[in-house]
Amino acid sequence: MSLLIVGTLAFDALETPFGKVDRIIGGSGTYAALAASNFTQPTNLISIVGGDFPEEEMNELKARGVKFDGVDVMADEKSFFWSGRYHMDMNTRDTLVTDLNVLAKFDPKIPQSYEGSEYVMLGNLMPAVQISVLEQLKSKPKLVIMDTMNFWMDIAMDDLQKVLGMVDLLMVNDSEARQLSGEYSLVKAARKIQAMGPKYVIVKKGEHGALLFHGDKIFSAPALPLEDVFDPTGAGDSFAGGFIGYLARVDSTSFESMKAAIIMGSAIASFCVEKFGPERLKEISAADIEARVNEFISLSNFEVRG
Amino acid sequence: MSLLIVGTLAFDALETPFGKVDRIIGGSGTYAALAASNFTQPTNLISIVGGDFPEEEMNELKARGVKFDGVDVMADEKSFFWSGRYHMDMNTRDTLVTDLNVLAKFDPKIPQSYEGSEYVMLGNLMPAVQISVLEQLKSKPKLVIMDTMNFWMDIAMDDLQKVLGMVDLLMVNDSEARQLSGEYSLVKAARKIQAMGPKYVIVKKGEHGALLFHGDKIFSAPALPLEDVFDPTGAGDSFAGGFIGYLARVDSTSFESMKAAIIMGSAIASFCVEKFGPERLKEISAADIEARVNEFISLSNFEVRG
Repeated sequence: MSLLIVGTLAFDALETPFGKVDRIIGGSGTYAALAASNFTQPTNLISIVGGDFPEEEMNELKARGVKFDGVDVMADEKSFFWSGRYHMDMNTRDTLVTDLNVLAKFDPKIPQSYEGSEYVMLGNLMPAVQISVLEQLKSKPKLVIMDTMNFWMDIAMDDLQKVLGMVDLLMVNDSEARQLSGEYSLVKAARKIQAMGPKYVIVKKGEHGALLFHGDKIFSAPALPLEDVFDPTGAGDSFAGGFIGYLARVDSTSFESMKAAIIMGSAIASFCVEKFGPERLKEISAADIEARVNEFISLSNFEVRG
Repeated sequence: MSLLIVGTLAFDALETPFGKVDRIIGGSGTYAALAASNFTQPTNLISIVGGDFPEEEMNELKARGVKFDGVDVMADEKSFFWSGRYHMDMNTRDTLVTDLNVLAKFDPKIPQSYEGSEYVMLGNLMPAVQISVLEQLKSKPKLVIMDTMNFWMDIAMDDLQKVLGMVDLLMVNDSEARQLSGEYSLVKAARKIQAMGPKYVIVKKGEHGALLFHGDKIFSAPALPLEDVFDPTGAGDSFAGGFIGYLARVDSTSFESMKAAIIMGSAIASFCVEKFGPERLKEISAADIEARVNEFISLSNFEVRG
C-alpha cells in the first residue's frame, strides 16, 4: 500500500557520552523513510533541502524506493541544521543550535504522483505545515499518524489542537504526553489526548519501551535492554517509520496489527541507536530484523500456570 | 513448599500527592507475608516487634498461615518506625524519620520448627542480619532471594558483598543496580552483579515494570499502567513476596517459572499501590488476582506476521 511521509532531510551535529560528530545526515524524513523501506516500497516523501544536501544520500534513499517528486530542492539555500547534546540517561538532551534555513520556507505541495497515498506519517514539524499536507489530500487515507514535540505545545497550541483533530494516531514521548494533557498518569493523559482527536495514542518511553492506548485497550511493548545506547538521534523517527511501514505492508489498521507494528518499530529503533546517525539503518538486512524481532518475542513472552 | 521470610513488622507514616497517614502498619515482612499468603502457606516469618504492635495485626497474619515462632516480641520496647514523603513521580521519596527501636536489637534466631525451609526471602535489612539468618540454615534451600538498598551500599558494602555471595537472586531497583555495579547500562549492571554472586538479578523499574537477568537471558515484564498510584509503599516487598510465594507453590526455580513469578509479583504489587499501606492486600481474592494476571497477559501479548 502506498505510504506518504512528511519529514525533514537535515544535517545534525551530536554529542553523546560516547563521542561527538560535527555534521552528519539526519532529519525525521531520512530516518523514517529508511526505516519504512524495510517493509514497504515506494515511500512518497515530502520534504525540503538546500543545495548542500548530498546527491548520494538522495540516491541511496531513491534506491530504497523513496520517491522525491515531493522534495523541494532549493539550490541556493542551506539545509536544516540541528545540534544537540545528550545527557547520561540518553532520554534527555539539550538543543545547542537550530538553524531552520530552508525549513523556514517549507510550503509542502503534494505532487499528483502521490495522490491516493493510504498510509500517512506526519513527522515532527510546525503544526501548520502538517495541516497543509492533510488539507491537500484528495482522498481520505486509511491511517494518518503524527509526531510532535513540546516546542509546538509552547508556541503553536491552537494549530496543534487543529491537526490533532485531523489524525488517527499521535506518537509522543512520556513528558510530551504529560505536557499536552496536563496529567501525570499516562493512562489519564492518553484518555485526554484521545478526546482531542486521535483515537490511538502511542507513548514512547525510551529505554522503557512504549505504550499503545485505544479506548480501554492498552498494549505495553518492551524496549530491548541494550549494553550501550550509542546515539539515540532518530530513534523516534525510525520507530515511527518502521511502525507505519509495517502497517502499510500488512495493509491493516487493527489494534492487533498496531501491536505488531510497535514491535517492528522498536526493533528498527534498537538498531538505529547502535551507531551515530542513520549509519546502522543503512546496514541492516531482513534477516537482522527477523532475528531482532525474535529477541523481542523471547524477551516478553511468559506463561502462567495455576 | 515451605517458605521463610525475614523482614520487618513496623509502623509507617506516609505522605503522597494523594494524602497523608500518621501511623499505619507497614514493614517488609508484613507486605511480603501478605503477598505470599495468596500462593503458599505456611510462611515461616522471622521478625521483631515491640509491645506496641497490634495483636489483631499478628492474628490476621496468623490466619493467613504466617507462623510467628520466629518473631521476637519485646514487650517493653517500641516497633520500628519509618516516615517518608513521595514525590510526584512516585518512584522517588524522601525519608523523614527512621526510628530503629527494636530493630537495633534484631538478632534473628531460626526456631527448630522452621528447619528445612526450601524457599527463603531476605527482606531489606542490615546485611549482617541477612548473613546471620543464612548461616543458621542447617539445610541448603532451593532458592534464596534478597532485597537491599542504597543505604547498605553506602555504609556496609563489605557485608553486602558477603551476603551477595550467599544468595541465588538479588532484587533491586534500577538506581540501586546502577550504584552497586557502577554501570549505567542495566545490561552491564546485571552482568557485574551476577559476577558478585547471585545468578539471577531482578531490576525493578516501578511504573516501567521489571527486568530479570540470568546469564544471557533477559525477561522484560510490563507494569500495569494505572490511573493513580495511591501509595507505592510496600510495592517492592509485595512484589518479592508474590514472586517467591508463587515459586514455592509451583516448587520450581526455572527461568520460565521465574518469568511467571514476576508477573504474579507485579500483579500483587499493582493491588498494593491502590490504597494506603497494606489495606488493599488484605482485601484481594484469588479471583481478583486471576483477573489482574489476565490483564498482564493481554497487556503484553502480541503476534507478528510476515
